[in-house]
Amino acid sequence: MKIAVMGYGTIGSGVVDVLKINHDKIAKAAGEEVSVKYILDLRDFPGDPMEKCVIHDYQTIVNDPEVGVVVETMGGVEPAYTFVKAMLEAGKQVATSNKNLVAAKGAELIRIAREHGVNFQFEASVGGGIPIIRPLNKCLTADEIEEITGILNGTTNYMLTKMTDEGADFDAVLKDAQNKGYAEKDPTADIEGHDPCRKIAILTSMVCGKQVDFEEIHCEGITKITPEDIAYAKAMNRTIKLLASSKKVGNSYSCMVAPYLLPAEHPLCGVNGVFNGIFVHGNVLGDAMFYGSGAGKLPTASAVVADVVDMVKHTNRHIVIDWSEEKMQIVDYKDSRNAFFVRTTSDLADAKRAFGSIEEVPSLVDGEVAFTVGPLSEEDFAAAAEHIHVVNRIRLG
Amino acid sequence: MKIAVMGYGTIGSGVVDVLKINHDKIAKAAGEEVSVKYILDLRDFPGDPMEKCVIHDYQTIVNDPEVGVVVETMGGVEPAYTFVKAMLEAGKQVATSNKNLVAAKGAELIRIAREHGVNFQFEASVGGGIPIIRPLNKCLTADEIEEITGILNGTTNYMLTKMTDEGADFDAVLKDAQNKGYAEKDPTADIEGHDPCRKIAILTSMVCGKQVDFEEIHCEGITKITPEDIAYAKAMNRTIKLLASSKKVGNSYSCMVAPYLLPAEHPLCGVNGVFNGIFVHGNVLGDAMFYGSGAGKLPTASAVVADVVDMVKHTNRHIVIDWSEEKMQIVDYKDSRNAFFVRTTSDLADAKRAFGSIEEVPSLVDGEVAFTVGPLSEEDFAAAAEHIHVVNRIRLG
Repeated sequence: MKIAVMGYGTIGSGVVDVLKINHDKIAKAAGEEVSVKYILDLRDFPGDPMEKCVIHDYQTIVNDPEVGVVVETMGGVEPAYTFVKAMLEAGKQVATSNKNLVAAKGAELIRIAREHGVNFQFEASVGGGIPIIRPLNKCLTADEIEEITGILNGTTNYMLTKMTDEGADFDAVLKDAQNKGYAEKDPTADIEGHDPCRKIAILTSMVCGKQVDFEEIHCEGITKITPEDIAYAKAMNRTIKLLASSKKVGNSYSCMVAPYLLPAEHPLCGVNGVFNGIFVHGNVLGDAMFYGSGAGKLPTASAVVADVVDMVKHTNRHIVIDWSEEKMQIVDYKDSRNAFFVRTTSDLADAKRAFGSIEEVPSLVDGEVAFTVGPLSEEDFAAAAEHIHVVNRIRLG
Repeated sequence: MKIAVMGYGTIGSGVVDVLKINHDKIAKAAGEEVSVKYILDLRDFPGDPMEKCVIHDYQTIVNDPEVGVVVETMGGVEPAYTFVKAMLEAGKQVATSNKNLVAAKGAELIRIAREHGVNFQFEASVGGGIPIIRPLNKCLTADEIEEITGILNGTTNYMLTKMTDEGADFDAVLKDAQNKGYAEKDPTADIEGHDPCRKIAILTSMVCGKQVDFEEIHCEGITKITPEDIAYAKAMNRTIKLLASSKKVGNSYSCMVAPYLLPAEHPLCGVNGVFNGIFVHGNVLGDAMFYGSGAGKLPTASAVVADVVDMVKHTNRHIVIDWSEEKMQIVDYKDSRNAFFVRTTSDLADAKRAFGSIEEVPSLVDGEVAFTVGPLSEEDFAAAAEHIHVVNRIRLG
């Protein structure tokens, strides 16, 4: 089987590396040898061992009947979407690691793949190397999935872990993460939660079989988390984690991305550093968790190549993925229910007047009162919070 | 699709329950309705809603062309083996939760299924509801799996967790586990490690594609673990877990079941109570872990029904499982290498004379010296240990 790799960046070159490192194992698993015929990139790579495979026009791949599987590791919606669509329409199977593409166009590309009797797979788009898309599609089929809650962004988990372990502040750990290459120069997509927001939209779509638009998911990042919040978390025997969550409510789903205070016994509490963890609750399975490297060159490439192996084995055979273009109307953010931890410079009496029943938490900062309240709706919380001066509030997991 | 359930005990009745509870979801996932036509059991079940489905002769199923999938939840090798073989030879697909059957006859039954163009699946035989067999077969295909280490027995993990949390002794927690229904009246298979031994044999067979005989795996249980050992573990910031492990060494595998002292940062350390966790290290994936309910009626049935769904979707299409009857010669136990924690009533000088370089651990028991040593081979350890009086020794994870 000849394949093409579109985008020779970190993940794309990782795919080429994995195919080399595990050549024999992959050939055995796929049932035939898998080799790279083309690498599509804007750049040239003089001196690279794959130099001669590099091309600049995607039509070369479209028009080559020898290429059966195409890997898309370019990132971004365009031109990835145009290229992937053309590949599927030309009867080629596509594996992608591109969460932006999958969140925006996944349902449509699955339909196009089905119409052309080929496959579009995206295991690496969520959780890096952790198998989660295929387990949802192939393993947890006897369950109603009632909750998925994930630590889906390694950068912010690294930062929160470092803040927790070292008491460092946000700016210092961001700089450290950038120096170590964990955070981009422009870290917005990570620290504002846009990255895990796309991923939980993809997972929720897989669970409900309909299109969940990430733009409709309420999304908060970690930029407001301070060393004082971390100190409160420790005093409460909790850990602050940026969670992307999706909970079944009636026939819909309540989705959110935000920092949460997790109790020490929650399985996601042990997910530290750049690792990702995805907690799943099924109505008969109960609790399960999938843990591993959520990013990184080789782990992510491992998932892409596993898709390639699966597709080589399914040449001319469509693998059903139940994700239609029909829209899933998620629960309005205002109606989502959460319990909250609140720090305020107002006094306890004012807090009680505003919220009714609250539970005081010993204050760790002079001039501050701290308490927990709820669960209550986001709307009710916001209305009550107007009556006091809130220093910070973090949801309780 | 009509199915038959052989064995109407805890898991078998769980399968019937799950098919009822999630009827619509399962029909959607399978692409057609799945209903139970027969329940094979020695007993009758007067008053049971499924009473009319109960039969006593497995030939009734063999001879009914309407039954396409058979669930085996009887346990034990015989007569399960005879029944399952007959079903496969009659062109019926089989899903089993029976680790004894799979460890002893898995490779042969996979071959028979292949020869008859049907499938034999066993997701529930390891890790209860946790997806691990299918992820190994379908997801981690781009990797050389270099290590699998699992907490594969919920009963002993519950007992060790309780000993750790409460300082209770072995006999007391065993009694508690029996009272709660977590341990059987005859708890041998759990507390002596026979159960996780079969499971790690199955997982290693899945990884290497050959037959690993569980009888050849060195197996120690938890009966020698005392409250003093637990106290030492805490002082060393470690936790004692019964691990079933399999590590690639050259072209073979070093397998063992034994209690280990795990460092606090190991992902398996957070796997407490009746939960199971399976740690997997792939050469490109890195570390991953699968966590969930390793036993229990509904979680295990969830995995069995997921196999049923997969098989309904693969009617007349064999799913390749690479596990041949060719024998994998595992590494001789004597050559396995481990580091050890040792408690001795001999003095430090004797311990040093016996082992050479050791690292002393502050003693917590009067008249005792404690130290760590290694890694060294099991044979070398045993030879050196002859020269001192060992109170207990536990391997370091």
